[in-house]
Amino acid sequence: MRSFFDPRQLAHSPEVELHNGAFQPHAEHGGRVRSIASALGRTEEPADHGEAPLLRVHSPAYLDFLKSAWREWRAAGRPGDAAAYAWPVVRRRPIDLDRIDARLGRYSFDASSPIAEATWDSAYWSAQTALSALEAVLAGERNAFALCRPPGHHCGADYLGGYCYLNNAAIAAEAALAAGRRRIAILDVDYHHGNGTQDVFYASGDVLFVSIHADPRTDYPYYWGHSDEAGEGEGEGSTLNLPLPRGAGRTDYEPALGRALERIAAFAPDLLICSFGADTFGGDPICHFALEGCDYPVLARRIASLALPTLVVMEGGYAVDALGANVAAFLSGF
Amino acid sequence: MRSFFDPRQLAHSPEVELHNGAFQPHAEHGGRVRSIASALGRTEEPADHGEAPLLRVHSPAYLDFLKSAWREWRAAGRPGDAAAYAWPVVRRRPIDLDRIDARLGRYSFDASSPIAEATWDSAYWSAQTALSALEAVLAGERNAFALCRPPGHHCGADYLGGYCYLNNAAIAAEAALAAGRRRIAILDVDYHHGNGTQDVFYASGDVLFVSIHADPRTDYPYYWGHSDEAGEGEGEGSTLNLPLPRGAGRTDYEPALGRALERIAAFAPDLLICSFGADTFGGDPICHFALEGCDYPVLARRIASLALPTLVVMEGGYAVDALGANVAAFLSGF
Repeated sequence: MRSFFDPRQLAHSPEVELHNGAFQPHAEHGGRVRSIASALGRTEEPADHGEAPLLRVHSPAYLDFLKSAWREWRAAGRPGDAAAYAWPVVRRRPIDLDRIDARLGRYSFDASSPIAEATWDSAYWSAQTALSALEAVLAGERNAFALCRPPGHHCGADYLGGYCYLNNAAIAAEAALAAGRRRIAILDVDYHHGNGTQDVFYASGDVLFVSIHADPRTDYPYYWGHSDEAGEGEGEGSTLNLPLPRGAGRTDYEPALGRALERIAAFAPDLLICSFGADTFGGDPICHFALEGCDYPVLARRIASLALPTLVVMEGGYAVDALGANVAAFLSGF
Repeated sequence: MRSFFDPRQLAHSPEVELHNGAFQPHAEHGGRVRSIASALGRTEEPADHGEAPLLRVHSPAYLDFLKSAWREWRAAGRPGDAAAYAWPVVRRRPIDLDRIDARLGRYSFDASSPIAEATWDSAYWSAQTALSALEAVLAGERNAFALCRPPGHHCGADYLGGYCYLNNAAIAAEAALAAGRRRIAILDVDYHHGNGTQDVFYASGDVLFVSIHADPRTDYPYYWGHSDEAGEGEGEGSTLNLPLPRGAGRTDYEPALGRALERIAAFAPDLLICSFGADTFGGDPICHFALEGCDYPVLARRIASLALPTLVVMEGGYAVDALGANVAAFLSGF
């Protein structure tokens, strides 16, 4: 399978994140993609599609914020990376805000996703990687893999969070629609619910969002991914959440995947985007499912059995030693 | 003026708060009220009015959360005090959440207000202090002072933040309505906007909320306190925000106070609740107005000129050495 990756995606390197009430080393570090790239062997560098495809998903104000936040933080005399501490949880609305802290909270939903000096650059190339892999599929490849990093599925049109700054899967879906595809299905098989992707397409009838993930009553991102979230307006019925309890292994995962694939087949999309996280692996240090390396080709073959042109977009996965092998195993199933 | 205070309000003592991207000593410490109590001389201990008056403002689920959060945090094996890191900034709705982190974010709007072991107890007695001072006014005292700590004006019906856990002013206002008063005006003259109080009464026509505070474009709480927020529904027109730029001194403050008092007089309330913060003082370490100690009696006399039964409720103020003198100076104007 053709795979895409840009070394500029490595530049993003926040030192710490807020985790369980204390600062810890940032878990979403560059070693993750080095492990994957090394297991894959050859990757292609993406072309530069500019900002227009990003703006189909994200607001211009949000992109401006991502570009300038770290500089403004430092200009305010702050050490370290830019991180929020206050949020508009009620009556959220566009407001004209000057202070960097105010804008950080306006454009974030958690306190664990700092903006570092190179964050914009890495996020930009992560999105370009998704767009180039999509382009390969649109040009006739059966499948392609976008080794995106930072990941994307937690961030919405105008908010970051969960290590995510630009929503690579959503950007690819909008680009596919712009290129003439009519119906897109997104299957999110990261350990965590893809709240940002869900939010972006919640009212859209053109994009089906289906996610298998840890129950948000116990697992991040908590406030999205519950089974009663089904879309709204024209998107009513085009969101399907299949939460699983902690400890889920392949015997729990397969029936959920079966339901997901049934729904996708019924939607009859002309493109599948698979947000893939290897943090469903039993050895993942920050997650709690129990998939094994040998499960990934099996699950991938079932997804491939949909016989749809498929773009696989990398999301999470933190068991760095096994990460490359698990990703390669998943891709081998296609 | 009769003043109320309970020593149990001192027990709340978080060690650190998240401030400008790093953990700092908690600024809202017990030394604040010791400084005030010592300047006042005699204070009376409040009676116990139970939880019923708290439940007129706060949801039962929120109170349960406040009571148990610290124990659940420790039970999860966490060091220090309970602090949130993720928030439902969009599609906020009641959700059944198990994990303590999830519930912390559900019931908070910032990351700077930890819940410590004694937080519930101190917040409970802080509210009782407000209720007892109110009782004195309802019984015929011209004015009374509630030395509330922790403060209250940043927290809403179901969220904490800004060092606030129970909204003492709002609880007093609801108790006054329950006791038969028809129209209550709340004048908030803390440095920061009283977003929680505003939120509680935003759709109420019985309670006028008027606030003079630092412009939220540059100052906490950022997402509320803008001049275009005027209430909604039956409360349309019963919120008045008068933001002032940083650096404001008495010559800037007095015209705003004039507008505030005009609006209050026009509303013709039968009770005034004054949320008073001494963090408008020029020497305050975390705020940026320029009032002097001698300004406080002048401002208080203007408020007293409304000739309304008045309950003064303590909010912020962090220049501990001058705090007692500034509060005493303010109260002397009544």
